[in-house]
Amino acid sequence: MAEWETLAADKRARLEKTIPAEWKIPSVPESDSSYLDIPATSGVLSETELQITGSSATELVAKLASGELKSVDVTLAFCKRAAIAHQLVNCALEFFPEKALAQARELDAYFEKHKKPIGPLHGLPISLKDQFRIRGLETSMGYISWLNKYETEESESVMITLLRKAGAVFYVKTSVPQTLMASETFNNIIGRTVNPRNKNWSCGGSSGGEGAIVGIRGGIIGVGTDIGGSIRVPSAFNFLYGIRPSHGRMPYAKIANSMEGQETVHSVTGPLAHSAADIRLFLTSVLSQEPWKYDSKVIPLEWRPHEENIIKTKLASGGLTLGFYNCDGVVLPHPPILRGMETVVSTLKANGHHIVEWTPYKHQYASDLTYAIYTSDGGADVYRDISASGEPIIRNIKDLLDPDVKAINMGELWDTHLKKWQYQSEYLDKWREMEEKLGKELDAIIAPITPTAAIRHDRFRYFGYATVVNLLDFTSVVVPVTFADKKVDVKDEKYVPMNDTDKLVQAEYDADAYHGAPIAVQIIGRRLSEERTLAIAEEVGRLLGNAITP
Amino acid sequence: MAEWETLAADKRARLEKTIPAEWKIPSVPESDSSYLDIPATSGVLSETELQITGSSATELVAKLASGELKSVDVTLAFCKRAAIAHQLVNCALEFFPEKALAQARELDAYFEKHKKPIGPLHGLPISLKDQFRIRGLETSMGYISWLNKYETEESESVMITLLRKAGAVFYVKTSVPQTLMASETFNNIIGRTVNPRNKNWSCGGSSGGEGAIVGIRGGIIGVGTDIGGSIRVPSAFNFLYGIRPSHGRMPYAKIANSMEGQETVHSVTGPLAHSAADIRLFLTSVLSQEPWKYDSKVIPLEWRPHEENIIKTKLASGGLTLGFYNCDGVVLPHPPILRGMETVVSTLKANGHHIVEWTPYKHQYASDLTYAIYTSDGGADVYRDISASGEPIIRNIKDLLDPDVKAINMGELWDTHLKKWQYQSEYLDKWREMEEKLGKELDAIIAPITPTAAIRHDRFRYFGYATVVNLLDFTSVVVPVTFADKKVDVKDEKYVPMNDTDKLVQAEYDADAYHGAPIAVQIIGRRLSEERTLAIAEEVGRLLGNAITP
Repeated sequence: MAEWETLAADKRARLEKTIPAEWKIPSVPESDSSYLDIPATSGVLSETELQITGSSATELVAKLASGELKSVDVTLAFCKRAAIAHQLVNCALEFFPEKALAQARELDAYFEKHKKPIGPLHGLPISLKDQFRIRGLETSMGYISWLNKYETEESESVMITLLRKAGAVFYVKTSVPQTLMASETFNNIIGRTVNPRNKNWSCGGSSGGEGAIVGIRGGIIGVGTDIGGSIRVPSAFNFLYGIRPSHGRMPYAKIANSMEGQETVHSVTGPLAHSAADIRLFLTSVLSQEPWKYDSKVIPLEWRPHEENIIKTKLASGGLTLGFYNCDGVVLPHPPILRGMETVVSTLKANGHHIVEWTPYKHQYASDLTYAIYTSDGGADVYRDISASGEPIIRNIKDLLDPDVKAINMGELWDTHLKKWQYQSEYLDKWREMEEKLGKELDAIIAPITPTAAIRHDRFRYFGYATVVNLLDFTSVVVPVTFADKKVDVKDEKYVPMNDTDKLVQAEYDADAYHGAPIAVQIIGRRLSEERTLAIAEEVGRLLGNAITP
Repeated sequence: MAEWETLAADKRARLEKTIPAEWKIPSVPESDSSYLDIPATSGVLSETELQITGSSATELVAKLASGELKSVDVTLAFCKRAAIAHQLVNCALEFFPEKALAQARELDAYFEKHKKPIGPLHGLPISLKDQFRIRGLETSMGYISWLNKYETEESESVMITLLRKAGAVFYVKTSVPQTLMASETFNNIIGRTVNPRNKNWSCGGSSGGEGAIVGIRGGIIGVGTDIGGSIRVPSAFNFLYGIRPSHGRMPYAKIANSMEGQETVHSVTGPLAHSAADIRLFLTSVLSQEPWKYDSKVIPLEWRPHEENIIKTKLASGGLTLGFYNCDGVVLPHPPILRGMETVVSTLKANGHHIVEWTPYKHQYASDLTYAIYTSDGGADVYRDISASGEPIIRNIKDLLDPDVKAINMGELWDTHLKKWQYQSEYLDKWREMEEKLGKELDAIIAPITPTAAIRHDRFRYFGYATVVNLLDFTSVVVPVTFADKKVDVKDEKYVPMNDTDKLVQAEYDADAYHGAPIAVQIIGRRLSEERTLAIAEEVGRLLGNAITP
């Protein structure tokens, strides 16, 4: 066994030990049927614990704040369910129920003494992508070479400090693809994380462990990061809501990352959850801790109810004005996604909203520019951390990274900054021109987030629907729509692909293989429009009957 | 004559022609006495025109909005006074009274027809640093090689577009140092711009033309840019208010610049004026045009009266809590500046405010890091534009740029990003710790903006008081305090310099030479605290008796 394999095996053994025998399930079903019901039928959770894990975070914090629930009970319930989730979908890189229960007991003692919650998330377990640094734990981020290094109070991520102040309990850190630069989740430490609805489908990536664990309610709010769809893709593939806030809204200081110091397209952090309300709970709770006093990149911008009210007022009179595009002009989405878009558009129209066609502005250019930014160091950073242990490069990264890609120099980087700024401002011009033409505000744009429903493993080829939004730094919220249906989502055999990537994506469609896979769209708002865009997403979800997902 | 000299001479001749004979003054006094009274005694301006140019911008826009004043009269008054200013201090790179008057007539016609102003700056002349691109005009930015290129509607700066929408009239673009990277103002096109109070003193830089023209009221609000003190130093040297807003508050798109694409320390734009009220008028007027819909870098943040009200409430009950430092630990300010600081601190204390000592956190490190960012391309950008015409490098740049400085590579730039972020966040930690210690908010920090009063030519050596604020991206407002006085500002002969730079700066002090030179301080607030910091600056100025400067 190579040394890297020994290290990985050791990590897996340590992880295995964190799950008590009484939380073990006898076996994982061989079939590709949904795992969603297994936590309920496993016998590991009590009726009360199933009820707790079946609730919304908003309900739970209300009950925790009133004393109706104890944190230790809520935490135990989610620890058990997370343990089952991990056995089913292989989603955890760190699992620490004992620390979690100790933290929960402290919070319960605080409540006992002060008769009030410590903060807006008092006693609520929050699951975290394994980029967040927590004192006493490893942050492997999918790299073998990062194992066996433990964080200190000093190195802890600002988000963790603030969530802790808000009363959150930490119990699990979830899996990511090696390097983070993939929309699926595979690494050489624990292997692949699969989709709880069908093990042949990806849970998405790079916050794939979060998508999977929240998808099966082993977590109620998960925290991910997104530089090219990494919150939104797992949300979409697991029938969840997920927000990519604009850069500077949420704290990122001291979060581990690939290509640290790369600031041309920023990675941002945000939640995945079962409802827009739970997304809002997370954002408002973090903002209530004044993150801009800790992390210089956070903009001092409290949650703005008056911005939400603008949307509410429009809903009460005259409706919203929304753009949409089914196709970005580079890759045509699969039939399930096109039907998902059609469902959203027709539902909105039927409810009196004004829907206009949006012409995607130079998305091929933007997608290429974003790719050039992701690879601007020629892959040096990720290759260094991979080769430090001798572990092999995962297939997603081999597919993504052109081995001949060269690092750019600083002058070329500055040119890239200018191109980005110009493109962003031109996009704003188009938005403004549309508003001038309509004589009113364009409230958001609805678009696919991926060209496929929850994808089969190792088939993710086109990131443009997600990444152009990252380049624009627009706010985007994923809304779950429906599920692929082989009876209606029929392949268009006459379609002529626009290019090689399109051809590759079209060839992947198979109505049988995707039957039942989650379908989502994204609601895109201008930069730093979290309040409005989330309010719109909430209304879209409500109209679709998906206000709270299973 | 070398070709570059011919080009410069041609530009000067064209500039000369823009001043009508009747606006010419017979001669510029040989003595080094103040020019401030010359516009009044020249006979070029009528009594009414002197009154107009002696007003505040806030008064003028009110009268323009009510129809009491016509834009053409206000514009003519400032054109005349700017013409005199240019003859005295050599401050203009572009002067276009005919275009200005045509624009003013259009605005008057608009008012006549609609019986209301077109925007919050209706009819008000605004002077501009020669970085702003205006259709039909050159943007030389002090480079010979940039001459004879004319802007189009397409290339116009977003700030210009929005000021035009707000009703501003453009009539002059003012001088800058070659490259912009200096705190004095000299270029090979028109030579040196001098201080209206004494031709032996610098008007500051790089927005030095703005400092000079507004200082002598040839302009009422001037717009500059600041990457290392370039708004604040000219404000200080001309007894003006000036704000360096945080990055993202004001639009910068399509403004000419050195080292375009350099985004580690951003240049920002902001106004210089005779009062905090006029500064506020400018900021609120620009924000009312929703710049974030035009320039992707602008944060969607309207002017926040509730933030101002927090300061007003504190003023009404209990007072402000302000930190201060006289010395940054690198260079001790000259006696006039130390007295200026003492004046501010004692005035605030006497008025019941809580003043606490602030320990500058690693300012030498920050100053060095900022310098490394300014020179990160090894000077390639500025040397290219200088050598394109064969013009010589100005002395300030020779003094500033180590000829052996090397360009850094992209990896080093990314490291610099991380260092900056960490330093900024550590500074926030210090601020927070102080607040925790005090048990209340630290509203701002008062500090010198330069170690010297308005400096003698070619003597500017230490930028750290300004540049550390740029690195932190904090909001800073310059407040004029008083004037150097040879009788009280006596050199401390026993002082032992801390290092070579300090030694150089101390050696420059000469009580006679600086007698009468303007003294200022800066009020530093956290990032994006324009409302609060300006409100504090306004109160400080009021207490000092400088609410509106001459």
